[in-house]
Amino acid sequence: AARQGVPREAASEALAAARPTAVNLFWAIERIGRLEEWTFERVLAEAQAIEEEDLQMNLRLAEHGAALVPQDARILTICNTGSLATSGHGTALGIIRTAHSQGKVRHVYSCETRPRQQGLRLTAWELLQDGIPFSSIADGAAAWLMARGGVDLVVVGADRIAANGDTANKIGTYALAVASQHHGIPFVVAAPSSTIDPATPSGAAIPIEERSAEELTEVDGIRVAPVGCPVWNPAFDVTPGPLVSAIVTEQGVFRPPFRFES
Amino acid sequence: AARQGVPREAASEALAAARPTAVNLFWAIERIGRLEEWTFERVLAEAQAIEEEDLQMNLRLAEHGAALVPQDARILTICNTGSLATSGHGTALGIIRTAHSQGKVRHVYSCETRPRQQGLRLTAWELLQDGIPFSSIADGAAAWLMARGGVDLVVVGADRIAANGDTANKIGTYALAVASQHHGIPFVVAAPSSTIDPATPSGAAIPIEERSAEELTEVDGIRVAPVGCPVWNPAFDVTPGPLVSAIVTEQGVFRPPFRFES
Repeated sequence: AARQGVPREAASEALAAARPTAVNLFWAIERIGRLEEWTFERVLAEAQAIEEEDLQMNLRLAEHGAALVPQDARILTICNTGSLATSGHGTALGIIRTAHSQGKVRHVYSCETRPRQQGLRLTAWELLQDGIPFSSIADGAAAWLMARGGVDLVVVGADRIAANGDTANKIGTYALAVASQHHGIPFVVAAPSSTIDPATPSGAAIPIEERSAEELTEVDGIRVAPVGCPVWNPAFDVTPGPLVSAIVTEQGVFRPPFRFES
Repeated sequence: AARQGVPREAASEALAAARPTAVNLFWAIERIGRLEEWTFERVLAEAQAIEEEDLQMNLRLAEHGAALVPQDARILTICNTGSLATSGHGTALGIIRTAHSQGKVRHVYSCETRPRQQGLRLTAWELLQDGIPFSSIADGAAAWLMARGGVDLVVVGADRIAANGDTANKIGTYALAVASQHHGIPFVVAAPSSTIDPATPSGAAIPIEERSAEELTEVDGIRVAPVGCPVWNPAFDVTPGPLVSAIVTEQGVFRPPFRFES
């Protein structure tokens, strides 16, 4: 009954309401919503096809991106963009993986990514699994690392890229882009082309999800802030296209000024 | 026995070895080390005199600093610089307190300040006690808040200020200074004059304490990172004088270019 009981529109709407910022979600919902046959088996098969295509796209994306990584590179990244966040290999972390397999990565700096700590919890785990040399750092330490000359390249993922290259990604990304520009360090965005949304003209039109105070005030259920502490907790920020040195998709490397069309 | 058993030099050396970055520590140790009489009562009296002088300095500093706060100000700060970090009233937080008592503060944004979370744990508590309207934010959200036009002024403390105005302060401060410059927001450093060290010509000569990995990988004893996760954990960073709009001490407001002499 559960397999047949959900009408197509209700299923699409429930999934679309889950998160407002990332555009791949809507892309995948729309693709599955267009299926002529609406059975569990057909939906599952299409979802598995998307999964396999995403993996193949990430592998191509990573090849394009690794070409931007200099020899002996110290690479800074944020959040999790690896196998735990994609169908496999990853986007920004996929570039790091491929560049590492080519012998070009000296060290990775992985930002903790408060409030949810995806860098410290997930990216650190993936880097340990792969034996890639790295250090986790507090988000506030990234600019200071750049000032000390410790970063050759910043690579981040994206949740939505507007037609003009403005890029929504995990909160903290914009701070890295500003610091990268200040220090003259290339700032690279990596995402499958389904993340590019030509229908969104600029970052101003991207809705930014704000999440609960508890993401900051509690860590694994342990309260770390005083009772009643108010919080502003945006889950994403928008990096203007002019701060982005390159956008890498499975189709290749795009350089500014960005003008994506449908 | 405990009261008389510690030789003057051993006591001074043990205290001086505790932390390398903040210069007030050495200033106070030296002042107490110069006492003619080395008895518990005399040392205690001198320490209490320093405590009272520090409070009075902070109150004067806050008056000078509050004059820089515009009406209806949204003020961003980092770490704890209040009563919990000083003899009372505070430095950066002292300015916020005095400006709030003058009716000039619309909102305070308090950066969490990873890894130790002094902003989320301590500054939030002091702001709640004083009924000052505020929001705690993740460190990575500060630049995005600036981009949205949400910050009129950044006020931070200092652990050591070199002769040229280079300022060592809690890790994350430099990132705020870079973002402030990018957005054209005044960046104010507040500290008693004992924090200024004319014997340190520039920030390059300030030793930066690096602390244990566990400060990042554990929160209240709960492990949040995978076992074996390597960490780079500098406790402080250095903001170059040219990024500082003003240095406020109990003596008044100093403007760049800074040239402090003994």
